[in-house]
Amino acid sequence: MMRVHSANFAVTTRGKGTYEITDEVASVVAASEVRSGTLTVFVRHTSCSLIIMENADPTARRDLEEFFERLVPEDTSYFEHTAEGGDDSTSHIRSVLTRASEVIPIAEGRMALGTWQGIFLFEHRRAPHRREIVLSIIGS
Amino acid sequence: MMRVHSANFAVTTRGKGTYEITDEVASVVAASEVRSGTLTVFVRHTSCSLIIMENADPTARRDLEEFFERLVPEDTSYFEHTAEGGDDSTSHIRSVLTRASEVIPIAEGRMALGTWQGIFLFEHRRAPHRREIVLSIIGS
Amino acid sequence: MMRVHSANFAVTTRGKGTYEITDEVASVVAASEVRSGTLTVFVRHTSCSLIIMENADPTARRDLEEFFERLVPEDTSYFEHTAEGGDDSTSHIRSVLTRASEVIPIAEGRMALGTWQGIFLFEHRRAPHRREIVLSIIGS
Repeated sequence: MMRVHSANFAVTTRGKGTYEITDEVASVVAASEVRSGTLTVFVRHTSCSLIIMENADPTARRDLEEFFERLVPEDTSYFEHTAEGGDDSTSHIRSVLTRASEVIPIAEGRMALGTWQGIFLFEHRRAPHRREIVLSIIGS
Repeated sequence: MMRVHSANFAVTTRGKGTYEITDEVASVVAASEVRSGTLTVFVRHTSCSLIIMENADPTARRDLEEFFERLVPEDTSYFEHTAEGGDDSTSHIRSVLTRASEVIPIAEGRMALGTWQGIFLFEHRRAPHRREIVLSIIGS
Repeated sequence: MMRVHSANFAVTTRGKGTYEITDEVASVVAASEVRSGTLTVFVRHTSCSLIIMENADPTARRDLEEFFERLVPEDTSYFEHTAEGGDDSTSHIRSVLTRASEVIPIAEGRMALGTWQGIFLFEHRRAPHRREIVLSIIGS
């Protein structure tokens, strides 16, 4: 029978970087007992974001993080929105270039992720934060 | 009972910039009477896009807009697709770097947006346009 | 009656570039007989991605591809993750800047795409690959 399964969890970050949340998300999918449907993962913030990324070799994520350091540098001279520091607009722009949500099909009771795909919270703030993740699963 | 609720509305833009549509979208969610589920917001164009962005301080959006001006400049010398002007390929590329859709969980009858999250149409064309937004809500 | 319709297909790429999959996806939507709902298209890889892009003039896509060549060049000097070649981190970063999924409303039995919107697989690897696409349709 078609149904909606909702859940929330929080991620405590230690500052900038990528934090894998695949296992937490997979646990929610398993608990939902939905065999076939779609999962939406959503982050309730504008200074961190979600990505699906290679989850095997940590150097892949280091390169990604360094790329974003250079693409949207902190303390950019023309930024006006600096109330919360030199990482303020930087964080919002990095979030817009990635995503607040990831949507993943569920098949045979599991996320249809490829072998190397992991779900990561991408923290853009220098300081540690508590980040809220909302999940919505629809299926049968 | 699980159901689909569909809606459309148009946004009239005055040229390049970010236009908040959170209230229009929230009205559709309220009218749907869906308490728990997911909302998809979709823009039917390739020269504007959707973003979820900080909605309190307008300077945050000005910095974002300026960032995109520099990342994907108009009148870029190697662009071939200029039939509709120097903002033609620029608009398509800015759209690809952002999104045609945003997907947001619905909980307790409302979008599960964080305090500072707003939904914006990001218009990439210099000229005013009428932009069509399609909403699809699934839930119970 | 609300239901889930799932499908898979593969795309064989000839190396870097954009490959339109709109017709394949439209066939799955038609076969599902869902009149109203949402479609999720998902790619099970981290070195190719999905985009919604102008589908009429091929020069638009050439400009987009050239933009990504310059934004995230191959053989970037500071990349550490080069086990699979100079297009390794490049491919992951280009994927993160675009998307693993696209979500599109279904109305009157068809995707609610605008006139010029096409769905494309964006292959970031130099070598040919077989890419798996998963579709999940929910609606009635």
